[in-house]
Amino acid sequence: MFKINENYLKLPGSYLFSTIGKKVNAFSEANPDKDVIRLGIGDVTLPLAPAVIEAMHKAVDEMASRDTFMGYAPDLGYEFLRNAIVENDYAPRNCNVSADEIFVSDGAKSDSGNIVDIFGDGNTIAVTDPVYPVYVDTNAMSGRTGTFNKETGMWSDVIYMPCVKENDFIPEFPSKIPDIIYLCFPNNPTGTTLPKDKLQEWVDYANKNGSVIIYDAAYEAYISTPDVVHSIYECEGARTCAIEIRSFSKNAGFTGTRLGFTVVPKELKCGDVMLHSLWARRHGTKFNGAPYIIQRAGEAVYSAEGKKQTMEQVAYYMNNAKVIREGLIDAGYEVFGGVDAPYIWLKTPDNMTSWEFFDYLLEEKNIVGTPGSGFGPSGEGYFRLTAFGSYENTVKAIARIKG
Amino acid sequence: MFKINENYLKLPGSYLFSTIGKKVNAFSEANPDKDVIRLGIGDVTLPLAPAVIEAMHKAVDEMASRDTFMGYAPDLGYEFLRNAIVENDYAPRNCNVSADEIFVSDGAKSDSGNIVDIFGDGNTIAVTDPVYPVYVDTNAMSGRTGTFNKETGMWSDVIYMPCVKENDFIPEFPSKIPDIIYLCFPNNPTGTTLPKDKLQEWVDYANKNGSVIIYDAAYEAYISTPDVVHSIYECEGARTCAIEIRSFSKNAGFTGTRLGFTVVPKELKCGDVMLHSLWARRHGTKFNGAPYIIQRAGEAVYSAEGKKQTMEQVAYYMNNAKVIREGLIDAGYEVFGGVDAPYIWLKTPDNMTSWEFFDYLLEEKNIVGTPGSGFGPSGEGYFRLTAFGSYENTVKAIARIKG
Repeated sequence: MFKINENYLKLPGSYLFSTIGKKVNAFSEANPDKDVIRLGIGDVTLPLAPAVIEAMHKAVDEMASRDTFMGYAPDLGYEFLRNAIVENDYAPRNCNVSADEIFVSDGAKSDSGNIVDIFGDGNTIAVTDPVYPVYVDTNAMSGRTGTFNKETGMWSDVIYMPCVKENDFIPEFPSKIPDIIYLCFPNNPTGTTLPKDKLQEWVDYANKNGSVIIYDAAYEAYISTPDVVHSIYECEGARTCAIEIRSFSKNAGFTGTRLGFTVVPKELKCGDVMLHSLWARRHGTKFNGAPYIIQRAGEAVYSAEGKKQTMEQVAYYMNNAKVIREGLIDAGYEVFGGVDAPYIWLKTPDNMTSWEFFDYLLEEKNIVGTPGSGFGPSGEGYFRLTAFGSYENTVKAIARIKG
Repeated sequence: MFKINENYLKLPGSYLFSTIGKKVNAFSEANPDKDVIRLGIGDVTLPLAPAVIEAMHKAVDEMASRDTFMGYAPDLGYEFLRNAIVENDYAPRNCNVSADEIFVSDGAKSDSGNIVDIFGDGNTIAVTDPVYPVYVDTNAMSGRTGTFNKETGMWSDVIYMPCVKENDFIPEFPSKIPDIIYLCFPNNPTGTTLPKDKLQEWVDYANKNGSVIIYDAAYEAYISTPDVVHSIYECEGARTCAIEIRSFSKNAGFTGTRLGFTVVPKELKCGDVMLHSLWARRHGTKFNGAPYIIQRAGEAVYSAEGKKQTMEQVAYYMNNAKVIREGLIDAGYEVFGGVDAPYIWLKTPDNMTSWEFFDYLLEEKNIVGTPGSGFGPSGEGYFRLTAFGSYENTVKAIARIKG
C-alpha cells in the first residue's frame, strides 16, 4: 500500500482567510445595506502598466508566427530578462549579481516554497514572528518543524524571533543557532524594515555560524527611506550566505500574471557543493520556465516607460498607505509600517485581541482587515490593513474609523 | 551549519541533451557546409492557433483596465477552464471527473515532478523502461530510489519494467509490488500505446495491491486508434487508484506558453486521507496559479475554432510521423510508435548501440535524433525521431536516410 507524506497531517488548517471570508459573508447577508470596504487582502487592484500590456500584445503576436514562435524557454529564463534584472535591480546598487545567478520563475510564492527541496532534513529554521505562513508551512510539509502546539500556535522545532513594538520589530539573534533563517523586508505583515547596519549584522551572523539566509525582498519597490537596503547583496559578505527571492507581483501588479526570480550566488556553498548547482537541478527537473509572453512582460517593467508607469502605481498605493497611517495616528492608534511597505500594522486598542478588533471593525465600521494573530503568536494584539485598495475606498474607510 | 539535500548528489549528470548538443556543434563547426536536420527534440514548431492568439490578446486587454483586471487566481484554477476541461476531455468519454478534482498548473513537468511531495519516504516506485527522466529523478531527489549504479544505469530501489519489442512495449507486472506506478501512454519515448484491456489490468492490479498509478497522458491528442483510451478514467475503478496528468504543450503547442492540469479524484485515499486534500494543500501553499492570460488561452483550445485549429496542428505532425514511419520501413528499418504518438522509435540496425547509430546518422546523413539509451537501459539499441519538425525537413531527412 502506498504511503502518504504524513507531515501534511500535522499542518493546522489554514483557516485565516476562510474564517475572514465566512465572517464577512455572514455580516453582509445580515446587513445587505452596509457598504463593506476590504482592506484585508494583499492583492493589487490597479491594472497592468501600458508598457507591460504593449509588450504582451507584441509577444502574443510573435507566438502567432512560425518565424518568431517560442517553444521551451532556457532553464534559467531568457537572457533578455535576466540581463534587465542585473542592469536595473543589482548593478545600480553595486550588488555583484550576474545574470547566470538569476533563476526566473512563476513567482515568489513558488520559489519560497520550493527552496526547501535543496536542503536536508536535519536543518533548524528560524522565522520572524509574525510571518508569511509559506515559510513555516513548507518546512512543516518536509518534516522539519516537529509538532504543532495548538495552544501556543507554535511548532516545537521552529525558532521564532518575535518582532514586536518593544524591539522595534527588529529580530534578535536567537539563543540556539538556526541553520536556515527566513527574513522578509520590507516585512509582510508588519510593514516594517531593517536598517542596513542591522541586516549587515544578520549577514555577519550567518557567515560566522554557517547559516543560510533566505531573503524575501518581494516588497523592495515600496522602500523610500534612504538607509534601507533593497537587496541583501548590498551587505558585505551576503554572497556567501544569502539567497534572495524577488517578485513582480507588488511592484508591477503581476499577482495574476505570475513572474518572480531567485538569486543564488555561486559563492554560496555547503562544503564544496554550490547551492546554485542544486537549485539549477531542481529548476531544470521540476519546472519548465515561465511563459515567454510573461517574461517579455517582465522585461517591459524595466523599460523607461515601464519603470515610470510602475513607479506611479507604487506611488498610488503608498499614498493610500499614507492616508491610512496618518488617519489612524489622528484617530489615536499606535501605528507601524506603511512608510516603506504597503502594509500598515496597528496595535489594537484597549487590549482587544486581534479577532475582537476584527469584529469591531467589521461590525461598527464595516471595514475588513486581517487579524495579526493569523500570522503567528507575536501578531496577537496587532492588526494589518493594506494599501492596495482604491484611493476613494481608502479615504472612506479612514473617515469611518475616525468618525 | 546548514545541510543540503544529499540526495541531489546521488543524481547522475543529465548529459543526454548536452552531449547531443556538443556533438552536433562539433560536427557543424567541422562541416559548415552541411545542412543538419534536427529531429531529436520534443519541442513543437508550429505557431499557436489563431483562436488561442485571439483569446490571449483579449485577456491582455482585460488586464489593462481596472474593471476587468485579474489578480490572484483561484487555487484550483479558473472555473471557466476547469469546466471546459470536464466538458471536452472527460464528459464525452464518460469519465466521471468533476471540475473540483482538476488542478490547473503551469505544466505537466511541474506536476509530474511535484507530485512526489504528497507521498511518504517509504514508497517504492515502478517505471517503464525506457522512461521520461523526470519521474525517476524527482523520486531520487526525495531519497526514494536507493543508489545509482553507473554500470547498469539503474537505481537500486526502483522497479524497472522493460518495454521492448519482445513484449510489444507492454509493461509486465513486476515480481515485487510497487507503491507508486508511473505510466505514460501514448509513451515518450517509444511512441507506443496500451490497449484498453491492458490498462484495465493495471488499474485492477493497482486497486488490488493498494498501489497508486500516476498516469501521464500528455500525448493523448495524438491517439487515432479506436481501442486506445485517452484517459485512465475510461477504465473501471481508476478513480480509486489513479492520478492523471495532462498538458497543453503537445496538443496545442504550449511548450513556451505553459499550461497543464492534474486530476486527483476524491475517491483516491490512503486510509481516510484523500490525496485530493494533500494535493490541494500543496497547490495552495507552494504555487500561486497559472497566469490568467494563459488560462484564457487554454480555454480557447476548447472553443469550436480552437479545437479545429489544434487538431489541424496535430494532423500536421502526425503526417510527419507517417512520413518518417513509412520511409524508415521502406528503408528496411524496424519501426515502432508513430501511429498514436509524435515519436518514432526504431531498432538500430546491425546491432549498433544507440550512440553508434546517433553518430552514423549525424555524420553520414546529417540528421540529429535521440539515442534510446538516454531514456534508460532498455532503450539501448533503439533510437527516437520526433515528428515536430517541418514537413519539408522531415521529407528531406527521410530521403537522405533512404538514399
